[in-house]
Amino acid sequence: MKQNKYDEAAFFNTYSRMNRSVKGLEGAGEWPVFRELIPHLQGKNVLDLGCGFGWHCRYAADQGAAEVTGVDISRNMLEKAREKSPDKEITFVRRPLEDFEYESDTYDVIISSLAFHYVRDFRQLCHSLYKALKPGGTLVFSVEHPIFTSRAEQDWFYSEDGRRLHWPVDRYQEEGERRTNFLAEDVVKYHRTVSTYIESLLQAGFLIRSVKEPAPSQERILENSEWQDEARRPMFLIVSAAKEQQAGITVIQAHA
Amino acid sequence: MKQNKYDEAAFFNTYSRMNRSVKGLEGAGEWPVFRELIPHLQGKNVLDLGCGFGWHCRYAADQGAAEVTGVDISRNMLEKAREKSPDKEITFVRRPLEDFEYESDTYDVIISSLAFHYVRDFRQLCHSLYKALKPGGTLVFSVEHPIFTSRAEQDWFYSEDGRRLHWPVDRYQEEGERRTNFLAEDVVKYHRTVSTYIESLLQAGFLIRSVKEPAPSQERILENSEWQDEARRPMFLIVSAAKEQQAGITVIQAHA
Repeated sequence: MKQNKYDEAAFFNTYSRMNRSVKGLEGAGEWPVFRELIPHLQGKNVLDLGCGFGWHCRYAADQGAAEVTGVDISRNMLEKAREKSPDKEITFVRRPLEDFEYESDTYDVIISSLAFHYVRDFRQLCHSLYKALKPGGTLVFSVEHPIFTSRAEQDWFYSEDGRRLHWPVDRYQEEGERRTNFLAEDVVKYHRTVSTYIESLLQAGFLIRSVKEPAPSQERILENSEWQDEARRPMFLIVSAAKEQQAGITVIQAHA
Repeated sequence: MKQNKYDEAAFFNTYSRMNRSVKGLEGAGEWPVFRELIPHLQGKNVLDLGCGFGWHCRYAADQGAAEVTGVDISRNMLEKAREKSPDKEITFVRRPLEDFEYESDTYDVIISSLAFHYVRDFRQLCHSLYKALKPGGTLVFSVEHPIFTSRAEQDWFYSEDGRRLHWPVDRYQEEGERRTNFLAEDVVKYHRTVSTYIESLLQAGFLIRSVKEPAPSQERILENSEWQDEARRPMFLIVSAAKEQQAGITVIQAHA
């Protein structure tokens, strides 16, 4: 059974009060970097995996996407997503994203924000997503960075007087389950190395377009000193990958 | 002036006693992963940047490479490299690798082992290497992993009784010089993020073929318990990148 913390009332209520839940995309520090990697969406068929409150789905609809589908495991999240999107043409599907039926050659763009580190089998998922994209299609996703997920504690190392000394890394090569504390709840994430994220995409046939580790801007740091610590270790990994001929030049000559 | 510690006697003598200096490639834990990424070398023109004692050059010659050039800043290293290669057709060039004259479309394969983290301007280097490769050519290089280089200390965090508690990461997003202690000497390395390594290659036109973070094998760990700690954090990043059309250009010619 896939974990579904977002349908537990206490967890959901705490999550709903997070900056990114209240303010949406503008409340998510990594959004400017993520947005830059999303191709033009006008007229496109877009799939959002782990859509949560549907912020990215609404963004896609606002950008003129022809079809938008949001998938999430949580009934609570999707209820809220539907509430927030009364005037949008978005299809919301309640399904663990591993179990969604990925039809071949269907989507122009697949996006996923901070969901894939909840997926046990990323290699398998990459194959499904590659299949589901149309040729020339793009996958853009963010995950918690492997530096962030390596230890189950997923926290700073503190001095005795409570200062953040540094970010500790351990068990990096030991991929798999991490039972971690997120919003005071026991949450299961899957740690993978940077190499595994990239190699899984390459092995599925993807072309790597971009690999980002967003850092807070100087502006953000001045706004809020908490952002300073965000430059001390990367929290997110954002990847753009394309379903395209890896190498090949295709020359077609048509003679009358 | 580029730093050249290997021509300082004390440093050179200590380096010469390291496992990888005495045993060569077999003494370097990451060699099996590195070797797997090197294309077939038979008949190829091969450039080795930061060749040191010339182990990789001799490997290339043994694999039947047509031409092998090794570049290194250190007179000591190249003397030793020449001594060790009496029967091989290898050209050794003494030059900081930033200042080597990269001729266009010249090499089939460029390799570099643990040298690029001494280079200040990696973006510039990527452009030079892309230019120097023949179309279809491959670049394979290893560097100290950004997790390893983020702090100037580049060491474990220890408990009061001397146990290795974890690997500390800090200043990750702050790229640039790290004055670090290597073999009891003050050595200047350049810290860069994983993202910068990959994006610099992509921006120069490279296609990413493989990104590895070698972990010690079970066999190695059983041989020598020191290898156990090598699974706790990645020490090396190894990348293979190709000079190929990124996207698949389709040329359609229609004749009447």
